[in-house]
Amino acid sequence: MRIGELSRRTGVSVPTIKFYVREGLLPPGELTSPNQASYGETHVRRLRLIRALLDVGGLSVAGIRGVIEAIDDPRRPLHTVLGEAADQVVPRYEHGGGSGIAEARKRVAELIEARGWRTYEGSPAAESLATAIAALDEVGHGRFTEVLDVYADAAEQVARVDLEYVAHRVAREELVESVVVGTVIGDAVFAALRRLAHVDASDRVFGETP
Amino acid sequence: MRIGELSRRTGVSVPTIKFYVREGLLPPGELTSPNQASYGETHVRRLRLIRALLDVGGLSVAGIRGVIEAIDDPRRPLHTVLGEAADQVVPRYEHGGGSGIAEARKRVAELIEARGWRTYEGSPAAESLATAIAALDEVGHGRFTEVLDVYADAAEQVARVDLEYVAHRVAREELVESVVVGTVIGDAVFAALRRLAHVDASDRVFGETP
Repeated sequence: MRIGELSRRTGVSVPTIKFYVREGLLPPGELTSPNQASYGETHVRRLRLIRALLDVGGLSVAGIRGVIEAIDDPRRPLHTVLGEAADQVVPRYEHGGGSGIAEARKRVAELIEARGWRTYEGSPAAESLATAIAALDEVGHGRFTEVLDVYADAAEQVARVDLEYVAHRVAREELVESVVVGTVIGDAVFAALRRLAHVDASDRVFGETP
Repeated sequence: MRIGELSRRTGVSVPTIKFYVREGLLPPGELTSPNQASYGETHVRRLRLIRALLDVGGLSVAGIRGVIEAIDDPRRPLHTVLGEAADQVVPRYEHGGGSGIAEARKRVAELIEARGWRTYEGSPAAESLATAIAALDEVGHGRFTEVLDVYADAAEQVARVDLEYVAHRVAREELVESVVVGTVIGDAVFAALRRLAHVDASDRVFGETP
């Protein structure tokens, strides 16, 4: 297809498509004449991925380049590529540098061990969890972590359907795109549902309505 | 207790305590002499709440004042106060103004109805959920909402233990403080756990390790 059709199919403007080609995010089309290039389904998929990383994941152009290099490197195992993409979009929480972080990291390691979760050294998710636990301790709500196992059960259920959703995809681009969209928007979906369930539970416990 | 001890017990500096009193966030201490005031446990609780709203919830001084006025108004039912506090700290997602938002709101209303969740008109959580669903549609992942019920089940489990945790508190300050801390840090805890569970599930599905 010509660049105009690629633009219509993806909703990305022609100048923006040309910018992505110049930046090395999108492979150039195949030249059919000195002034005309032809684009295929791989370009459609790649553009969808770029938009998801940009609009949903909030990645910079440099961050997007990193994800795309990982996708295009055939020696990189898929599991690693998916993990790297997700790590890019996981929100980082800064810990206040309090003494609680070492203790919190130990608790996270114990939880991962107890649940038999496979993970890897320096996982940003483990560090985020440790930071949140240390923050709870700092504000005097360390006891909140007693419910961590209920949270972990719920997270496992959600992760299972997330993976089923992702596993339908065939191309590496599509898999990575699903992971990014699912990670970012899935967090928002769950936070909103949890809040709706809070309102309901609070009404039942504290509300005056019968 | 004197202001110095209040500062030591809460970790809030004396000038900051005085600032909160001037701003009307903290009631003044009881004057024991023209230059000396005495503070009690209500001040300790109130300071803890202010710090949680500020440091964890990210509220402005004006936002904190709103929450505190609600707490101090005995005509305001507790359920309403808790809801208002939580609404202040729920992240808002802007929808792009696409046509999908009306359809997404309908889906959310159906979900709430189907689950028998009690809610209220204009709940920010319902609007956040509709925005997230519309965003999924816009990036071509509308099918992701097929797993919404699994997410909702998980959210109910988590909300149940959240409420049990909160219900231990007696003073209104403490209840509101727990709700704010639980809402904000609870989101971070769940997002990190979901991500850890993803890594595990992805390793099992796509990993090369046996």
